[in-house]
Amino acid sequence: MLGLEIVIASETFQRTGSFKFRAAYNAAQNTTSDRLIAASSGNFGQALAYACRLLGKQCTIVMPANSAAIKIDAVRSYGGTVDLVDVKDKTRAQRIEELAAKLPDAAVISAYDDPFVIAGNATLGEELAELSDQFDCIIAPIGGGGLIAGIIQGLQGKRCALPVFAAEPEIANDAARSLRAGRLERNETEPQTVADGVRTLSLGEHNWKIIKDGIAGIIEVPEHHIVAALQALFFQANLKVEPTGALALAAVLSDRSHFLNQRVCLIATGGNVDSALFMQLLQA
Amino acid sequence: MLGLEIVIASETFQRTGSFKFRAAYNAAQNTTSDRLIAASSGNFGQALAYACRLLGKQCTIVMPANSAAIKIDAVRSYGGTVDLVDVKDKTRAQRIEELAAKLPDAAVISAYDDPFVIAGNATLGEELAELSDQFDCIIAPIGGGGLIAGIIQGLQGKRCALPVFAAEPEIANDAARSLRAGRLERNETEPQTVADGVRTLSLGEHNWKIIKDGIAGIIEVPEHHIVAALQALFFQANLKVEPTGALALAAVLSDRSHFLNQRVCLIATGGNVDSALFMQLLQA
Repeated sequence: MLGLEIVIASETFQRTGSFKFRAAYNAAQNTTSDRLIAASSGNFGQALAYACRLLGKQCTIVMPANSAAIKIDAVRSYGGTVDLVDVKDKTRAQRIEELAAKLPDAAVISAYDDPFVIAGNATLGEELAELSDQFDCIIAPIGGGGLIAGIIQGLQGKRCALPVFAAEPEIANDAARSLRAGRLERNETEPQTVADGVRTLSLGEHNWKIIKDGIAGIIEVPEHHIVAALQALFFQANLKVEPTGALALAAVLSDRSHFLNQRVCLIATGGNVDSALFMQLLQA
Repeated sequence: MLGLEIVIASETFQRTGSFKFRAAYNAAQNTTSDRLIAASSGNFGQALAYACRLLGKQCTIVMPANSAAIKIDAVRSYGGTVDLVDVKDKTRAQRIEELAAKLPDAAVISAYDDPFVIAGNATLGEELAELSDQFDCIIAPIGGGGLIAGIIQGLQGKRCALPVFAAEPEIANDAARSLRAGRLERNETEPQTVADGVRTLSLGEHNWKIIKDGIAGIIEVPEHHIVAALQALFFQANLKVEPTGALALAAVLSDRSHFLNQRVCLIATGGNVDSALFMQLLQA
């Protein structure tokens, strides 16, 4: 249908339903504190809550008040404490600082900008390197950049030169702007893209160092292609993804000529989506 | 949540979205005729149409007029000819006879009662035998019995003694009645279970011979458990299945005490479901 071959690497069946478990478990395991605090729009929160349960630790997850209900409930079901913040009043970073002051023995874990997070995500890059004869390039979503940085680091560790492209919502294009400017650019406010997993203000510092020279390109994706990609994955591939999980296919829809006749590996990052929202998107 | 461990063997990502491709390809490959006729409520039809396209053959698929639109369209998209029959007027078997008389060079292929079909499905049993240290029993849906017969034959071929249970809708329980009576029992009309993949009048003769001594038991499943299982697979496991694909989990919901503390392998047979029906079932 598209004039190219697609391989889907799906993290929707990963523990807690998204790739974030790779990062969360590695970070929780390598942090000496028994109490962790993190900001997350949901998937990292679920993953960290489950990792902490497995490791016998406690965690508090700061989430935007408009997060998907299913993500809030999931953090709680894994035993995590949820702290809701209205991002119009204060940023998640500000709320994290308040909590850290209240709980001095707790360790603050970044959902995306931390060497342990990158190393956890690098396991996906290592797995993709093992399969690298099956495709010509990799496309993954970019928000804070932890996944892309991890994939690049994992591939490099295996001496694999597969090009890695990032898929970013057009209305949240700080990473694309950063790459063009050659320095970190930030969004003024959290962009309200349907891809709620990438509503970040900017790339993380650790990630930017890896991405600025390691990325093959960033594709800016209009919102309607994210919805079309989610529908195509559901109807053509029987795959249930959350909007962020559809970003890589959306990038192909947005810049198809770039990938013509190639074998493209798309990372479907997660499948945790509010059922009401999902049904609305299927019918959009 | 259920007090048992679940392994899901998903055929929703199989070619054409269901296990039926195993049978269809094997049957089409081993039939000398270049034109095939088959009756199918949809998945076998899609699978046979695609197999015939791959093998350079032609096929006509007889389908009930109330088949899911997505299944009719899919058969056509793979190059198959669709012949719709109102099952209140005549059975699919009668329509097949009419067509066979009109096309004397064509071979009639049973969607479920044929040694090549069983042998194709046996590849799933062989694959499960390789993983048999990971679970204590297998549950798969039963309609015409081709899948269950194939799984039993595949396991036996690998000298694997894992018990195989069948999941059958209560309102289409001809297989359970047959097992109790010790002889093939038939439904008077095609039962209108939501699991449209098992709306068959009876087990196939070839399948019955394998099933009557090879099956560990048949669990009769009320309709509401099929819907609950479809919802659970979607929300808890990020898996999109058609109603028939939820039957194995529905059997666990219906007879949980039977499987307590066991590691149960559930066959999710397919994922091709009309979107309007799917959304209705998610909200039921």
